[in-house]
Amino acid sequence: MSARPLDSLFAEGPKVLNLGLEKFAASLAREGAPVAHVEWKPPAGGDVRAIAALDRIASRARVDVDAANAESVRRILAAKPTVVGIGVAKDVVPGMHRKLVLHAGPPVAWKDMSGPMRGAVMGGLIHEGLAKTPAEAEALAASGEIEFDSCHHHDSVGPMAGVMTASMPVWIVENKAFGNRAYCTLNEGLGKVLRYGAYGDEVQERLSWMRDSLAPILAEALKMRGPIDMTTVIAQVLQMGDEGHNRNRAGTSTIIRELAPHLVMVDAPKSEISKALAFLNANDHFFLNLTMPSAKCAVDAAAGIEGSTVITTMARNGTEFGIRLSGLPGRWFTGPASVVEGLYLPGFTAADAARDIGDSVITETSGIGGFAMAAAPAIVKFVGGSPADAIDVTLRMYEITLAESEQYRIPALDFRGTPTGIDARKVVETGILPAINTGIAHKEPGVGMVGAGLVKPPENVFRDAVIAFAERYA
Amino acid sequence: MSARPLDSLFAEGPKVLNLGLEKFAASLAREGAPVAHVEWKPPAGGDVRAIAALDRIASRARVDVDAANAESVRRILAAKPTVVGIGVAKDVVPGMHRKLVLHAGPPVAWKDMSGPMRGAVMGGLIHEGLAKTPAEAEALAASGEIEFDSCHHHDSVGPMAGVMTASMPVWIVENKAFGNRAYCTLNEGLGKVLRYGAYGDEVQERLSWMRDSLAPILAEALKMRGPIDMTTVIAQVLQMGDEGHNRNRAGTSTIIRELAPHLVMVDAPKSEISKALAFLNANDHFFLNLTMPSAKCAVDAAAGIEGSTVITTMARNGTEFGIRLSGLPGRWFTGPASVVEGLYLPGFTAADAARDIGDSVITETSGIGGFAMAAAPAIVKFVGGSPADAIDVTLRMYEITLAESEQYRIPALDFRGTPTGIDARKVVETGILPAINTGIAHKEPGVGMVGAGLVKPPENVFRDAVIAFAERYA
Repeated sequence: MSARPLDSLFAEGPKVLNLGLEKFAASLAREGAPVAHVEWKPPAGGDVRAIAALDRIASRARVDVDAANAESVRRILAAKPTVVGIGVAKDVVPGMHRKLVLHAGPPVAWKDMSGPMRGAVMGGLIHEGLAKTPAEAEALAASGEIEFDSCHHHDSVGPMAGVMTASMPVWIVENKAFGNRAYCTLNEGLGKVLRYGAYGDEVQERLSWMRDSLAPILAEALKMRGPIDMTTVIAQVLQMGDEGHNRNRAGTSTIIRELAPHLVMVDAPKSEISKALAFLNANDHFFLNLTMPSAKCAVDAAAGIEGSTVITTMARNGTEFGIRLSGLPGRWFTGPASVVEGLYLPGFTAADAARDIGDSVITETSGIGGFAMAAAPAIVKFVGGSPADAIDVTLRMYEITLAESEQYRIPALDFRGTPTGIDARKVVETGILPAINTGIAHKEPGVGMVGAGLVKPPENVFRDAVIAFAERYA
Repeated sequence: MSARPLDSLFAEGPKVLNLGLEKFAASLAREGAPVAHVEWKPPAGGDVRAIAALDRIASRARVDVDAANAESVRRILAAKPTVVGIGVAKDVVPGMHRKLVLHAGPPVAWKDMSGPMRGAVMGGLIHEGLAKTPAEAEALAASGEIEFDSCHHHDSVGPMAGVMTASMPVWIVENKAFGNRAYCTLNEGLGKVLRYGAYGDEVQERLSWMRDSLAPILAEALKMRGPIDMTTVIAQVLQMGDEGHNRNRAGTSTIIRELAPHLVMVDAPKSEISKALAFLNANDHFFLNLTMPSAKCAVDAAAGIEGSTVITTMARNGTEFGIRLSGLPGRWFTGPASVVEGLYLPGFTAADAARDIGDSVITETSGIGGFAMAAAPAIVKFVGGSPADAIDVTLRMYEITLAESEQYRIPALDFRGTPTGIDARKVVETGILPAINTGIAHKEPGVGMVGAGLVKPPENVFRDAVIAFAERYA
């Protein structure tokens, strides 16, 4: 550096360090000036209320937020999700009854429901025998006679539309470390299925067979085998190219091999047991409905910690995306559900796509799924992008999380633990949004799946949550 | 550069580019001279006869070696290994008879056999009812009454000791593109097993059960399912953290899920079918004995191409490592089997280890196994090293191979095809030896597995092969 900076400026020209907007750097570079560009965005995207809230939490919180978060994270990491059985929703899911339809995401009224969710509700009502035709089902749903509620209000989660009705079989997953349970229906496969909004005969026949044959057979085999420790299974499948959300080939394989020796012994016709095994073999997503309640019961144990900014729920209903914070139990912060960027099945395009939908983002909330994409480079064939992108996604998530899993490790990152415990403050501060990979439903009821991809949640939900947290705690 | 180099040398001191031995660079650096070091080794390690052979092949070959190699590689890449059945060795393996014992690696006489191979031979003779005790078996093996031969001379391969006797069940894998077949016994699991040289009651009971119950049940299920296209299965498992040799969890899972729906339907006691499925679930290496004959029938189709330097066999018998070239069919080039560098099971050390043994290196010969380690970062927990090492191993193998697989792709390398078709010339020229990962047997007969690791073949076999090739063709 010259002792007389102005002299040297005119003698040597400027050397520029450019912060933020890249186009200034580009202009200077065009003029031949040496310029280095540094990525910079103002905290909270420059949102004054959010910045003030972050400041107040940092300087004037009535609680020790870091200690509260440490406890939330400790609980998530200590979870022991264990598959203990298969039951019927009305017998095991708290508050379930014949005229209640549970759905994915934050609460939403019939009139505001997206196409695929309406389709799934109609299909569920037909499945329950409450309506005979789609038209009857639609009328019944609109009549006010049917109660709707979020799966999350009933210790449950559902992929895509996430519709659960009273007679559906459900996985029962118990968090052995804390005693809480979570429930989820059994996975129907891809394509024309209820959770993607289809409701026709094919869907109805499959749902009936799952209730009457598949579920009782699996339930008996599971009883013979004994509970399945999901922490161990998920840890293994992350070494086998699954990420715990949209790539489930290793997980489904693991469930098949663990149950098969017992399935053979079930007291049922051979042909039905064989059909069950063939169904599992043909449906690589079968495992998803086991990781979801596993994730759900892990993060549920971290809910309600006074003063914690850890996100314990993320969920979408196709209309809105919602989150809940540990320290603000029961309160949803919502924003409009986003459009998914992804790959489409033959014959479909982005014009066919419903908006972001489903509770499966509970996997990301617990630190796997999109957060563990580096473990599953082959997933890019399903959701788009390159294996290098998959690694970048995971690396970015370490910036908005508080801990690394001891159990769930990523081979490609030298067995680093998955990024776990999303801090809403960090999301707002950095502007880095949780990475979510997801299926894409058709926007109209009755069609089904059209693709899969990556989606960004709406930024406002994180800012609103932090502002509300500051109001409550600072 | 100065116009008067000597002047500038004395004025500015030397700037050194150091080739080869690194210690010269280190001395210069210590003196403060600017020095850049370039890795360099003389071709063929400076072996004058090998260099001369390479020169003669390059300048005076009577055949178009590159065209011949292109044909070898085309055949390896076009292979369609397909599991078509399970048979009994004496019924299906060419030349098999009651007093013949097949073994891994190049041919070896009883007196020269390593401990684990002697143990496995003894166990095989007891299994056949030709001897009652280990002492009797040892005496019989030494008596001259028993014929020994390399599995490879009978279209077969065997892991570790690779012992196959007449009544053992074998996988039948057919190369649907060329019509040739390969055979391999069924995998017994890890630990105290015949192929690692154990022969006691536990081993005998398992072998009898495999012959009398497991194999007939699997054979019937396979018949019901129909042939298994191994190209598709291997391609899938490389997306699931297997590399096709020592990590087989995805492969074994795949075989279980493909066979399970049919196993249920087999006309056998439920309890025996359940036992078969439990055995498969407890033995992640079960798939190895399917990849091996798949690899074998792929490279066998490339053997005997006039003028080809492609390596079509690599194999070890615990005493010697041997290779065969496509263009020199039937000729083995052998050298002393190496010591394996690896991880040991609790209670064992390198002092317990037998030398490199087994035909499983046929997987590497065909372009998977060690050559595909980048697909299986988690394998380092079994064989040692880091995930970055696993990637380096694969990258190095591209330097000694002629092609990249269209089918077998590595997610972590952006779906690059596995390095396929080892050119003996390239191995000699570069000094880069084929990367092999392997199990480690105890050096004494009767013990079993003690660990797993990586091993380098002896360099001389490649040089000897190239010299012999030059004598024949140039």
